[in-house]
Amino acid sequence: MNKQELTVKGFSFAALSAGLKKEGKLDLGLIFSDVPANSAGVFTTNKVVAAPVVLTAPRVRGGLCQAILVNSKNANACTGKQGMLDAGRCSMEMAAVLDIDETLVAVSSTGVIGQRLPVDKITAAMPQLVSGLDPGNAEAVAEAMMTTDSFSKVSAAYGSFKESPYTILGLAKGAGMIHPNMATMLGFVVTDAKIAPELLDTMLKQAVESSFNRITVDRDTSTNDMVLLLANGASDAEIEADSSEAVTFSELLAEVLLDLAKMIVRDGEGATKLVKVEVIGAASAGDALLAAESVATSSLVKTALFGEDANWGRIIAAVGYSGAEIDPDRVDIRVGDILLAEDGLATSAEQEEAATAIMKQPEFTVTVDLKSGDGSAYYYTSDLTYDYVKINADYRT
Amino acid sequence: MNKQELTVKGFSFAALSAGLKKEGKLDLGLIFSDVPANSAGVFTTNKVVAAPVVLTAPRVRGGLCQAILVNSKNANACTGKQGMLDAGRCSMEMAAVLDIDETLVAVSSTGVIGQRLPVDKITAAMPQLVSGLDPGNAEAVAEAMMTTDSFSKVSAAYGSFKESPYTILGLAKGAGMIHPNMATMLGFVVTDAKIAPELLDTMLKQAVESSFNRITVDRDTSTNDMVLLLANGASDAEIEADSSEAVTFSELLAEVLLDLAKMIVRDGEGATKLVKVEVIGAASAGDALLAAESVATSSLVKTALFGEDANWGRIIAAVGYSGAEIDPDRVDIRVGDILLAEDGLATSAEQEEAATAIMKQPEFTVTVDLKSGDGSAYYYTSDLTYDYVKINADYRT
Repeated sequence: MNKQELTVKGFSFAALSAGLKKEGKLDLGLIFSDVPANSAGVFTTNKVVAAPVVLTAPRVRGGLCQAILVNSKNANACTGKQGMLDAGRCSMEMAAVLDIDETLVAVSSTGVIGQRLPVDKITAAMPQLVSGLDPGNAEAVAEAMMTTDSFSKVSAAYGSFKESPYTILGLAKGAGMIHPNMATMLGFVVTDAKIAPELLDTMLKQAVESSFNRITVDRDTSTNDMVLLLANGASDAEIEADSSEAVTFSELLAEVLLDLAKMIVRDGEGATKLVKVEVIGAASAGDALLAAESVATSSLVKTALFGEDANWGRIIAAVGYSGAEIDPDRVDIRVGDILLAEDGLATSAEQEEAATAIMKQPEFTVTVDLKSGDGSAYYYTSDLTYDYVKINADYRT
Repeated sequence: MNKQELTVKGFSFAALSAGLKKEGKLDLGLIFSDVPANSAGVFTTNKVVAAPVVLTAPRVRGGLCQAILVNSKNANACTGKQGMLDAGRCSMEMAAVLDIDETLVAVSSTGVIGQRLPVDKITAAMPQLVSGLDPGNAEAVAEAMMTTDSFSKVSAAYGSFKESPYTILGLAKGAGMIHPNMATMLGFVVTDAKIAPELLDTMLKQAVESSFNRITVDRDTSTNDMVLLLANGASDAEIEADSSEAVTFSELLAEVLLDLAKMIVRDGEGATKLVKVEVIGAASAGDALLAAESVATSSLVKTALFGEDANWGRIIAAVGYSGAEIDPDRVDIRVGDILLAEDGLATSAEQEEAATAIMKQPEFTVTVDLKSGDGSAYYYTSDLTYDYVKINADYRT
């Protein structure tokens, strides 16, 4: 994807090193819309909520947003009243430098919990940040959001309505602490389509449900998660509720978010595999989701994925304790298209060998067919590796 | 503890290598009571239930048991009708060799799921097993139960009632797949006290709740878990319901089970730490348990324990997503007696250093005070290490 494709009418982007990370790495980013954009947001469900989330959520839910300021390295979480003051100061100074209303500024932070945000470094960098705003800088903002991420995450989709083209551009960060609902992840999506805030809100929630809420790296969720969607209407494509264009837009939005979500799992801390766990034939959709989540989060399944070990016993055991209604004697398990277990029993040594070969690939699907109904659900997960332990045992040192 | 202390009147023990494990390691064990003993049992809640559990549960719940046959290396789980036939053949042949009623035999298996039990090896070894029965052989049975365990687990407590001494002797196995309810663990407890089956059942359930149901290594539970309690009445100590002796016996039983449970966590796959997570001051006991379980099972907390990193942000985040009612601005976190966070905020660099020093010890307590009520609960957990990944990625190869 070249830079040309990563532009959205009326949006500009900037990133720089404000000295939060070492070695001059990008750590501060800004997304700016020429005009106030309609906005929607989804936020962490953790009861411990970081200051920037507390400040930003009501503003974005208010329906208008013009600027998103994001820093990495420090989460400004568990920082009490001081943290709220610090987030407020960032927001106020950013508004002043941009000469816009403060309520149009969203602030977000990601990084270590429990340490005071270095506000002075951030505010000192703001004039330079604003002067660097450029329509082609989106990838730099994605880079500035990274913490334990090993690559920056950008995705885009393109649509048109009545010959007016529009773009949906998404940036995300996240590698560890990945679990519904929202995990330690930030996602910023901007579009030049014209969409009312209520419709934006509905479409965002649906798209998050089928993407960011269907991935897991570990079971931990964080204090800072947020996904924001801004639509500034710079394109003439006007999307109205209950229209076929709304359906198309929703599909494209879901595509962008799922693409970003899969990148997060692929970049899961220490991960070497991206595995789709698909449960079909469940008694209900709820049972399917319980079973898929249980398999996707089992440490024993995830270490077996790392070991490329077609140990279906761990998979069926995880289904068994998931709480889903199942008949163990009807369960089929496939790796790719290889039937590894049928009616709860091993198939053959040849099939196990074939399944093991598939597991050597970096991406594959594990399908559990409960043969008890029509319910289905999926989850994307990573393997659990030495490097996951290494990254998280040493993170602050 | 010398062998003398590990005897219980009227019980004898035997173990040998039946060729299930490599290199002649002990893999088959037998616990035998001279007379049918009153019995109680607690079994896996996994919906995928191994054949030996299906066979044994109704027998033990029937109230009488005289022999427990246990094998390691193969779980006889996910083996369908053949698995039930195999478990039945073991039980039938064991009864024949011992010359007792078949319904008095409990069978249990632990090891790999989904492979057929090598019944012929097991039945061929039975005569030799029975001829090796000896009151002083309990530790050998504990050894024969081991799979990924790095040490055998035996604990005993001693009581007396009206000058009649009695012993409670417990054997357990378990290292991975440890999580309520029951996990991949086997526990066999025998006593020479005289206790009615109904009372045994009540006391066992209570003691399991405060011991085996309060430990976690990973979140996985298994298809084979069982804890059996046999009381053969060979001592004159007769324990009756609602008596002060019943209270004493319950306390001793809980002590033995907790001791075994802690051994299992200490032996957690790859574990280098045994950490007690204690939640106090919760709005209710249920909230305390949710919070304790969430902290004790968080991969991020467990890797920080391995890294000896006093990263209380991960602890408070795990409390925050636990579902427990909390006020983040009131939470205190201690490591040992060092206050690491107060009212949701970091205390001082000196205190963090002192906490880090405590975390270098092999065993310590993390206390979370929610300051919102009287509810309290605890969990024992291990750290998440490279070796956990290694053991589970390579288990079958």
